[in-house]
Amino acid sequence: MQNINFDTRLRRKAQAVNYALKKILDFQQMNDDLAEVLNYAINTPGKRIRSVLVLWCHEMLKGQMDHNAEMASAAIELVHTYSLIHDDLPSMDDDDLRRGVPTCHRVFDEGSAILAGDAMLTLAFEVLAREIDPPVMALKLIGQLAHNAGPSGMIGGQIADLKAEQTECDQEILEYIHTNKTAKMFRCAAAMGAICGGANKKQQESLIEYGEKIGLCFQITDDILDLSASSEELGKTAGKDVIAVKCTYPAVVGMETAQKIQKQLTEEAIAALKPFGKKAEILRQLALSLLERTK
Amino acid sequence: MQNINFDTRLRRKAQAVNYALKKILDFQQMNDDLAEVLNYAINTPGKRIRSVLVLWCHEMLKGQMDHNAEMASAAIELVHTYSLIHDDLPSMDDDDLRRGVPTCHRVFDEGSAILAGDAMLTLAFEVLAREIDPPVMALKLIGQLAHNAGPSGMIGGQIADLKAEQTECDQEILEYIHTNKTAKMFRCAAAMGAICGGANKKQQESLIEYGEKIGLCFQITDDILDLSASSEELGKTAGKDVIAVKCTYPAVVGMETAQKIQKQLTEEAIAALKPFGKKAEILRQLALSLLERTK
Repeated sequence: MQNINFDTRLRRKAQAVNYALKKILDFQQMNDDLAEVLNYAINTPGKRIRSVLVLWCHEMLKGQMDHNAEMASAAIELVHTYSLIHDDLPSMDDDDLRRGVPTCHRVFDEGSAILAGDAMLTLAFEVLAREIDPPVMALKLIGQLAHNAGPSGMIGGQIADLKAEQTECDQEILEYIHTNKTAKMFRCAAAMGAICGGANKKQQESLIEYGEKIGLCFQITDDILDLSASSEELGKTAGKDVIAVKCTYPAVVGMETAQKIQKQLTEEAIAALKPFGKKAEILRQLALSLLERTK
Repeated sequence: MQNINFDTRLRRKAQAVNYALKKILDFQQMNDDLAEVLNYAINTPGKRIRSVLVLWCHEMLKGQMDHNAEMASAAIELVHTYSLIHDDLPSMDDDDLRRGVPTCHRVFDEGSAILAGDAMLTLAFEVLAREIDPPVMALKLIGQLAHNAGPSGMIGGQIADLKAEQTECDQEILEYIHTNKTAKMFRCAAAMGAICGGANKKQQESLIEYGEKIGLCFQITDDILDLSASSEELGKTAGKDVIAVKCTYPAVVGMETAQKIQKQLTEEAIAALKPFGKKAEILRQLALSLLERTK
């Protein structure tokens, strides 16, 4: 059973991210056409898990949200949203629905959707360069975000995912795809929260381990839900992975093993939080909620 | 008549950029599929004008290329190359040829081309965050690049260009598009060279003015060449702007006025170099070569 208090806390923090994103877009000088697409994309009702993860990791270390953490969380949400827009394109996953509403290229057009994604990715780095202080912290955050979202991270996973549709998939390829496509952005969120919160090396390593484990669990849950849930529940087209014969955990290792791996990852994630004691309670609840989520 | 010595110097500097790009890609951990697309895109025979502009501005101020300037020039070339890959996509300009060879999405597929562009844009910021020292210089470069390539720069121009195909175009829209789509990246290159070279405020302003003027001239020349040159000369499909009834200088102000504006911009660019005296000779030659180019 989901913890009601947890859901409320997640929603409230997501509001803080939405507010930061709105401030960033309102502040940005751009033409009306581009502003319209970006506002549409940003206002789709996402759960903001990655960006809230930045805030919660920071809060655990520092006690209260500050401008650096706020901007870092908005930056990772911009990168995540751009990746969804591009991932939904006809030449990629070809999705008509995302977060329960029509995808960007369906509402506008493909060219606008590609450019909106490009704009968000670029804007994320501008925000970090402009808003974070001191400069050394800004550089660390930019380095983390670029490294985890780039060729040796998310994009590497996405291209492998694209190629896997055309070939046999085994567990090694599957792990590579899921780690890079999904887990690295969770890992990145935890690292960014740790950097903003002034974590020492050991604390940072613990949070990174936690982030990577819940990220991998998140993607396996996605695979499983895609098999069992309806489109209405998911807010996106269900059963697509089966149609495309995609590389998923249930398809490669079977449903039972997939669920076992999910649970193990969650346990390992929670174990990584041990050094933080009771202060990590909300992160423990987050790990459990990602295991138990139904959409 | 083109200055042969100038052409040789441009080619030599372009080689330095190519070498830096090769080093960056070789150093980057990524899977073979992604590496193949990125290497193809980077090895298409571009003139590397924006990145050489970084190097020449830096050299004028500091005398010799250093690691910071090398990495800054590679970063802007990565961003420029990504913008070409996305711009050539079927949902944008739908081009089959670029720099005389088949475009990325024609050799591979659309999804891979989109991801390769995303990878290059992200990698550009990773390179700057990782390689530039001191941190304050890295942040200034990242800020410049993100600002000029993002929603208030290149992407703003590109979306306006896309929309202009569907409506009447006047000189105001045309100037907005050309300034943002093209001139801002030249302006950015000059600013990045100035930052790496430790320019004072006045020097930086002069170089930025120079960069923006030659960038605008460059785009008007592109418009004119598209009307008069063959595909073979251009290395890309000629006459496309006419087919698409695009917003171009010859179409909006007429050929004669377009050529007059070109010359005026070049004169103003050269005038902006006055404070640098004889040291700016190569930048003067660059301005003239962009006015006189035939491809």
